[in-house]
Amino acid sequence: MKVQQLLFKTEKKAPADCIIESQSLMMRGGYIKPVGTGVFSMFPATKRIAHKIETIMREEMDRIDGQEVLFPVVMPGALWQESGRFDSIGSELLRFKDRNGIDMVLGMTHEEAAVQIVRDVAQSYAKYPFMIYQIQTKFRDEPRSRGGLIRTREFTMKDAYSFHTSQEDLEKYYEICYHAYERIFARCGVPEVVAVKSDSGMMGGRVSHEFMLLTDIGEDTIVICPECNYRSNMEAADCIVENAPCGVEELAEVHTPGYKTIEEVCTYLKKPAINSCKAVLYQRNVDDSLVIVFLRGDLDVNETKLKNHLKADIHPAIVTEEMGVCAGYIGPKGLPEGVTVVYDESLRTLESFVAGANKTDYHYVGMNMARDIGDVEYVSVAKAFEGGICPVCGKHSIKISRGIEVGNIFQLGTKYTESMGLQYLDSNGELQCPIMGCYGIGVGRLIASVCQVRRDKFGPIWPITIAPWQVQLCALRVDDENVRKTADKLYEDLKKLGVEVIYDDRNIGAGSMFADADLIGVPLRAVVSPRTLERGAIELSARDKSFTVDLTADNAAELIKAKVTEMINAISNVD
Amino acid sequence: MKVQQLLFKTEKKAPADCIIESQSLMMRGGYIKPVGTGVFSMFPATKRIAHKIETIMREEMDRIDGQEVLFPVVMPGALWQESGRFDSIGSELLRFKDRNGIDMVLGMTHEEAAVQIVRDVAQSYAKYPFMIYQIQTKFRDEPRSRGGLIRTREFTMKDAYSFHTSQEDLEKYYEICYHAYERIFARCGVPEVVAVKSDSGMMGGRVSHEFMLLTDIGEDTIVICPECNYRSNMEAADCIVENAPCGVEELAEVHTPGYKTIEEVCTYLKKPAINSCKAVLYQRNVDDSLVIVFLRGDLDVNETKLKNHLKADIHPAIVTEEMGVCAGYIGPKGLPEGVTVVYDESLRTLESFVAGANKTDYHYVGMNMARDIGDVEYVSVAKAFEGGICPVCGKHSIKISRGIEVGNIFQLGTKYTESMGLQYLDSNGELQCPIMGCYGIGVGRLIASVCQVRRDKFGPIWPITIAPWQVQLCALRVDDENVRKTADKLYEDLKKLGVEVIYDDRNIGAGSMFADADLIGVPLRAVVSPRTLERGAIELSARDKSFTVDLTADNAAELIKAKVTEMINAISNVD
Repeated sequence: MKVQQLLFKTEKKAPADCIIESQSLMMRGGYIKPVGTGVFSMFPATKRIAHKIETIMREEMDRIDGQEVLFPVVMPGALWQESGRFDSIGSELLRFKDRNGIDMVLGMTHEEAAVQIVRDVAQSYAKYPFMIYQIQTKFRDEPRSRGGLIRTREFTMKDAYSFHTSQEDLEKYYEICYHAYERIFARCGVPEVVAVKSDSGMMGGRVSHEFMLLTDIGEDTIVICPECNYRSNMEAADCIVENAPCGVEELAEVHTPGYKTIEEVCTYLKKPAINSCKAVLYQRNVDDSLVIVFLRGDLDVNETKLKNHLKADIHPAIVTEEMGVCAGYIGPKGLPEGVTVVYDESLRTLESFVAGANKTDYHYVGMNMARDIGDVEYVSVAKAFEGGICPVCGKHSIKISRGIEVGNIFQLGTKYTESMGLQYLDSNGELQCPIMGCYGIGVGRLIASVCQVRRDKFGPIWPITIAPWQVQLCALRVDDENVRKTADKLYEDLKKLGVEVIYDDRNIGAGSMFADADLIGVPLRAVVSPRTLERGAIELSARDKSFTVDLTADNAAELIKAKVTEMINAISNVD
Repeated sequence: MKVQQLLFKTEKKAPADCIIESQSLMMRGGYIKPVGTGVFSMFPATKRIAHKIETIMREEMDRIDGQEVLFPVVMPGALWQESGRFDSIGSELLRFKDRNGIDMVLGMTHEEAAVQIVRDVAQSYAKYPFMIYQIQTKFRDEPRSRGGLIRTREFTMKDAYSFHTSQEDLEKYYEICYHAYERIFARCGVPEVVAVKSDSGMMGGRVSHEFMLLTDIGEDTIVICPECNYRSNMEAADCIVENAPCGVEELAEVHTPGYKTIEEVCTYLKKPAINSCKAVLYQRNVDDSLVIVFLRGDLDVNETKLKNHLKADIHPAIVTEEMGVCAGYIGPKGLPEGVTVVYDESLRTLESFVAGANKTDYHYVGMNMARDIGDVEYVSVAKAFEGGICPVCGKHSIKISRGIEVGNIFQLGTKYTESMGLQYLDSNGELQCPIMGCYGIGVGRLIASVCQVRRDKFGPIWPITIAPWQVQLCALRVDDENVRKTADKLYEDLKKLGVEVIYDDRNIGAGSMFADADLIGVPLRAVVSPRTLERGAIELSARDKSFTVDLTADNAAELIKAKVTEMINAISNVD
């Protein structure tokens, strides 16, 4: 195709509201068009990228025996009532009534639809295991859409659902899908995507992983051990602490007038924060009842872990007199009855520490859990931190990074099959609920994420496997007959060889033409100009500046085709 | 893939609510799963058919220089307010408010989105003409979804929009797209789809065509002349009548006590209906004002043509005293002032006819328009009828058929570009509104329509270009070692040759296996059984029963591959 015909328009400057570089480049390069908040149209170049990503996903899903289906975008609310999610999900689930007053929802995920389609066709164990997937539009009424295609309300997603007759079989397939995901990301040109353990959130289930592309603009915090390759998202990461011996002291009450925060108290008492115990207060959303978390003074609470432990949603407490606690001086000893108390693992082996005395202007020093509080349950509810101990290899090696979640996989268990009554007869003739896994990748977010990590200041540098075209042919000075003839012939030759070429034969200056080409981001560029022809050459260069070579006009198309094949193979040859 | 793994289930009987044969077969064959009213999930076989149809559409759209884009399903109401359609379309446009209380709609068509994406990238005439298309989910809150995928509320559609700088250029491209549509339907195995002139309805614009697959279960009525190939949908068809000479008579009032309908009056007066004038009464929706249509007594009113003539929506009149007309005796002569009267063309040359006298129990005989009513405007508002005169070749050859609309193309004009302010600078530096065309095909409806016209009582007979698989391999008695070995090898050989094969190696009886195969509807069937092996053969037959041949096991795969290629070419080689 010719650039002249391509529906796009480049801009020198991005709109003022662009907050990240990929968004800015994709707006400047004419890739996406905002239609409403978090809702975009895709220009042709973007649709070509999406189509290639979808083809890769389809191939990899088919390779692991996936069967493609299609679920509706619009579903009756009654279907979501079967699983209980019609009521349990917040306003990100878009609900409306149709012309007959029937409750409907826009699909933000399709577990219910997957169970519904399977329900009366997989009643015998002999059908299992199997996996179905779709590539379909989804809508999530996000309060915070951001970053162009990074977080939108409407998006295209590849979602897959597997069904199994045993946990063991699910785990086997989960592993297979995990590797398929690695292949998908590698084939899309971002092999550095890493899988991290995650908290499953509203999806339910036990084991789950997020596939993360590490980048500073990521919304997710990731805990990594470079020593042993342990990886987890912050929500799911274990925080391991070692308390250095500090000697058991006598318990003593000390006057700490006006010193309320743990920093103030430790400074005043000249004690390090690692020898203190801080109290963090929450309330359960359901009844505002108080929850006090005690943990080592230098640590923070991992609220996801706390929620999971309490099996309840919580919010930071607003302390009132009725609670009967002494804000600023709260400690494990002498608390009022009936308050939920959670002790973090970090306190278990602390020999001696500072803690509130539950009395205004007083703290204890020399407190010891076993001696002074007794036998309590310890729970891991502290956040992992930079330089902390890896829960796997035990080294002080933990790094904290940021990343974009470009995919996720979940072991769902029987949450949906049980609630929605999907059953099969096992080989003993008994009814069982199958065990599910689910597996998702958002297409638009992946495009934006690749752009974020494969770019320079002039534009995206698309990996050749997903680039909208493989080669951009730039003819400078098409008014020069020789340039016109050579470039036109190369264009035709490349098309004949099946090379995806976009041809810029506009009569514009080199500066504008190359600036546009940079924004289109095609990985190979062939330039025909009076200057290259003077030395009898067509110049071929890589968008990432890794090479520039002169080709002779008579076999340029074949050499370019060979280079394209070489570059595709370099990316696509994955296990 | 193996039938054992395929997610589907066949039924001997269709659900009771199936009203047409294709729906019944697609339910029995495990193709679709109702999720809500007019909302379906597609099982894997159906998704494979859809994917093939989409690929054909994509190839044909690309071939006529289409650029694929993607518009959102969910759009802000404000965008539809720009064109005026947010208010003008009824409740089939699904409207809702998002979490911020913003008006949103579900896209039932995408003219607004197309103009919006083009608006700031096609400001120079040099960019024109161009065409953009998408394949995307649409939702139309149909009051009457029916027939499985024939008429659904949610559906996948290929919609295309072209932009031009002159009517002439639009017409040229319209013709190109018309032929692309013929190729699409031919390649999908239904070359008999015919294009008919249509009324453009709510889309606006002037010239439009519907692509119709003729079948008794069609919702549309089509007027066809087998002599000259004139084709039109009923709404747009001209009704040509020739009035035989009957002699000019004197006008006379006659007593017709209690005879009100035109049949009663004609019988009583012993006059043929073709020598009478009947009055049909409507009211404009906007103000209930009366409209009287006079037409020859044997004809019916084409309400679409009447609406277009009046430029107003109408409904059959409920006659009240205030209207001042004499129901049952209404005629052209002596009507009260101020009533809108429409005279159909059929009355113009009628020499002498019966008509109401606008007086209870009285009619006129011998009425003549020119003599008794004077110089009035005649409009063509009568319905075409079987055996009527073809408006093109003039023969009494009109046939009335029924059909399913499987595609449509419109010359939209500047309706959307003007209302939404899309302009470009022409070569004289003046601002102009581009002229649009739009072009749609529904994927699901096409699948159901093909099933409706390519089937026998046992199941669908999918054309090989869109069939879910090309060959079904049936191994009967897999407990026979020789059968197992031969069939397994053929399966592997076919896969190696790139033949799309589905393999039934379930240990079930021939009756069940063939019944399932009939419902899967794969065009070629290879059978391996003890009986075929006894005669040293693998039996290859066509689903449409056009042939059965014995192949020898050693080159069966190659011969099947050759047959597949031959069958594909027979369908795909279209101009």
